[in-house]
Amino acid sequence: MANTTPSTALSRTETINLIGLVSVCATIFVRTLEGEGEPLLASLALSGFAFAASYAMIRWLGPTFIKAGLKGRDMSKLNNTHYIPECMGAICAVVYLLIIIVFIPFPFYKDIVVATSGGGNRDVVMNVDFVQKGRLLHKFPHSKLASFLSAIISLQSITLLGIGDDLFDIRWRHKFFIPAFASIPLLIIYFVDFGVTSIVLPTFLQPYVGRELFDLGILYYGYMAAFCIFSPNSINILAGINGIEVSQSIVIAVLLAFNDALYLMTPYPHPATDSHLFSLYFLLPFLGVSLALLIHNWYPARVFVGDTYCYFAGMVFVVVSILGHFSKTLILLLVPQIFNFVYSTPQLFGLIPCPRHRLPHFNARTGLLEPSVTTWEKDRQPHPIIAQVLRILAQFKLLRIKEDEEGRFEETSNFTILNLWLVWRGPMREDKLALEITAMQLAVGLFGLFVRHRLALLVFREDNLSIRGAV
Amino acid sequence: MANTTPSTALSRTETINLIGLVSVCATIFVRTLEGEGEPLLASLALSGFAFAASYAMIRWLGPTFIKAGLKGRDMSKLNNTHYIPECMGAICAVVYLLIIIVFIPFPFYKDIVVATSGGGNRDVVMNVDFVQKGRLLHKFPHSKLASFLSAIISLQSITLLGIGDDLFDIRWRHKFFIPAFASIPLLIIYFVDFGVTSIVLPTFLQPYVGRELFDLGILYYGYMAAFCIFSPNSINILAGINGIEVSQSIVIAVLLAFNDALYLMTPYPHPATDSHLFSLYFLLPFLGVSLALLIHNWYPARVFVGDTYCYFAGMVFVVVSILGHFSKTLILLLVPQIFNFVYSTPQLFGLIPCPRHRLPHFNARTGLLEPSVTTWEKDRQPHPIIAQVLRILAQFKLLRIKEDEEGRFEETSNFTILNLWLVWRGPMREDKLALEITAMQLAVGLFGLFVRHRLALLVFREDNLSIRGAV
Repeated sequence: MANTTPSTALSRTETINLIGLVSVCATIFVRTLEGEGEPLLASLALSGFAFAASYAMIRWLGPTFIKAGLKGRDMSKLNNTHYIPECMGAICAVVYLLIIIVFIPFPFYKDIVVATSGGGNRDVVMNVDFVQKGRLLHKFPHSKLASFLSAIISLQSITLLGIGDDLFDIRWRHKFFIPAFASIPLLIIYFVDFGVTSIVLPTFLQPYVGRELFDLGILYYGYMAAFCIFSPNSINILAGINGIEVSQSIVIAVLLAFNDALYLMTPYPHPATDSHLFSLYFLLPFLGVSLALLIHNWYPARVFVGDTYCYFAGMVFVVVSILGHFSKTLILLLVPQIFNFVYSTPQLFGLIPCPRHRLPHFNARTGLLEPSVTTWEKDRQPHPIIAQVLRILAQFKLLRIKEDEEGRFEETSNFTILNLWLVWRGPMREDKLALEITAMQLAVGLFGLFVRHRLALLVFREDNLSIRGAV
Repeated sequence: MANTTPSTALSRTETINLIGLVSVCATIFVRTLEGEGEPLLASLALSGFAFAASYAMIRWLGPTFIKAGLKGRDMSKLNNTHYIPECMGAICAVVYLLIIIVFIPFPFYKDIVVATSGGGNRDVVMNVDFVQKGRLLHKFPHSKLASFLSAIISLQSITLLGIGDDLFDIRWRHKFFIPAFASIPLLIIYFVDFGVTSIVLPTFLQPYVGRELFDLGILYYGYMAAFCIFSPNSINILAGINGIEVSQSIVIAVLLAFNDALYLMTPYPHPATDSHLFSLYFLLPFLGVSLALLIHNWYPARVFVGDTYCYFAGMVFVVVSILGHFSKTLILLLVPQIFNFVYSTPQLFGLIPCPRHRLPHFNARTGLLEPSVTTWEKDRQPHPIIAQVLRILAQFKLLRIKEDEEGRFEETSNFTILNLWLVWRGPMREDKLALEITAMQLAVGLFGLFVRHRLALLVFREDNLSIRGAV
């Protein structure tokens, strides 16, 4: 079944490289098992496995997906008559989940050693009888385990719902709220097991409120739920050209991991070390599976990622940032997505007609992408106020409009960041557009992190990187 | 989309009944929120919601499933040209998972009240500062929460893998091990958080071993993994006629719930009460979604359940019995499944040729089911030893064989309990067969529970219902 088309086999070079990678990872992995189970190394090794497994399975399972009806045509190519597999991000999600489940014992290795009579580093020797009864390991960090598990449940939920979306093509209005369901486990475990609903107030607000911390109470859960809904959807709507969903996700994940690394490299143990280690454990395998997907999804794409991947990626970010207590940092990294969403609202909320697809228009003659447009009939012109706003946007180069001699709109470019970028930079090939948007995402994100750590002192009393745990 | 065929709409009676059920459940649910959050009542109310949601969604989503290619024809019907939706058990699984996630806070209600400053029954008043920091709620039963979450993760994993199986039609040899992956979270959390690997030895063995408890160590994990693989697969292979997958699952769930109830109705609080409450919390919503599915899947079936449901049901049983420490009891309830599996092995392991489908043969003339058969060519007869065994089985009425005048096999009935039942009882209509098998399952299970609680004293020092916690 896997051999109906020759392209599903791995080439000799690919096979050798993957086997090499797996061997290296296996060596590292066995070393960590022999030693003290250093979780970060184990996570790295497992991320290597995750990359190799996703890479091979994405290749092998293509025909199986096509046979199951999960297929699509690439509209931005000259030769777009053949189908390529769709929804391959589901493979990444499932591989990721299996890997992260296998990883569960590692962050707790030392605690398990402490709690059981097995060899290794025993700082505290406990009564064996006590241990044999289970349940009573007072020293065991159960709440850390519970937040780890709740993260997995949220990610599994979003995967299930994402696959449902990919299979059944749920309408936009309905699927917008899919991530809300997946946020329930996160919120519930947050409620049951953590319950911190206070935020640090900016310094300039503190005199008015009279304190440093402000308890948002139930609003905090609303904030988290909104965040859970926004992040996956924002990745999902910045889509439409080869590679862009995965490359933006990789940039965000790399920047989050970079931010985590900052906390781990402080000269003395930082109080938020645990949160940021936790974050790395979830981000490294995500990078593993995403890179494997990117290689197949980059221009010219041999597979499509599907909504599952976008939801899943967005949820990984939400999970690490909420459970790691740095959701404000994530907001800084999502600035291009936030801009894209805000910019899209006129079409999403129906003020401007919204065609089924708003991806950039492929010009078959030049082979380049151009901004796609919404056309206006002569007798169905926008409301005068809206027309005025559209003209102002066009003046600020935030829209391209085409009018006839009498000043009636003929077409306006669609409201997505991809089309806007093409308005600014002119027609370009699909991969160049993906590359430029990714570079922009990286630049904006780095600037965001700079603001976060260098300029935070202007609005907060201290940057939590230097003094206190992140809230 | 949902209205392409008239049958997807709920009838007026159905609508009224469902709204009535939901109203009653909502009333109970709100009462539990106002009171002390009595978790068993909340679970009952949520199970009612689960029934209503599954019932309506199974009806509404039929055409969506068919459109996505999840469809099949019922071969045991006269008019079998039209497709009916397949894999509808996935709806049950997803509804179940959402309901059980929403239920998470309830078993911990009192602990949350103790740990926070909110109203209600405060037996222990804790320092508020302490609480606000999170993480440090020493009184909170984190390990109970962790086992709850691990159960959810295992069930979500099996659902994901089951849907993969239903979509991609994984080969039998491969899919047999699918539940093994889903068992990983269960085993890992068992290892990390519980670690009891001792079993109580039967009294007659105790003098030889010299103690009452025997530590199986790593073998215990092997035992649990094998159990995780066996239970879902055993449900999946006792299949092939309308309603049988769901009705056997409902019988097992009802008997497990009955067994749980025995522990809750002891005159004094039983040490295993918590385990059995835990079990009920998982079984009640399962009964809710299963009943909704059974109504649609019972003869003549309007939907098929799919492998997802079978795996999912088997995993629910494994999860409650492993985390509740009564896996031996589950084995007693699975006796018909174990018999079916053992009886099937000659065909599963290739000693006897195994056709693609072994479901009973539908005789279009009589409208009744008859045992389906494996045919033997004149020049491809079984090995003499196997032939001898087949004749012995036939003598004990454990097989029907048909020989030609020269004693060569022409056909032998297929090795499933459904075919065997038809050999014993003669041809019968599909629903009668399902009913009789279900009744047999109930009778065998009740006898098993009787053995468990009345005769256990013969092999163990005491029945744990009367004196000690179950191990």
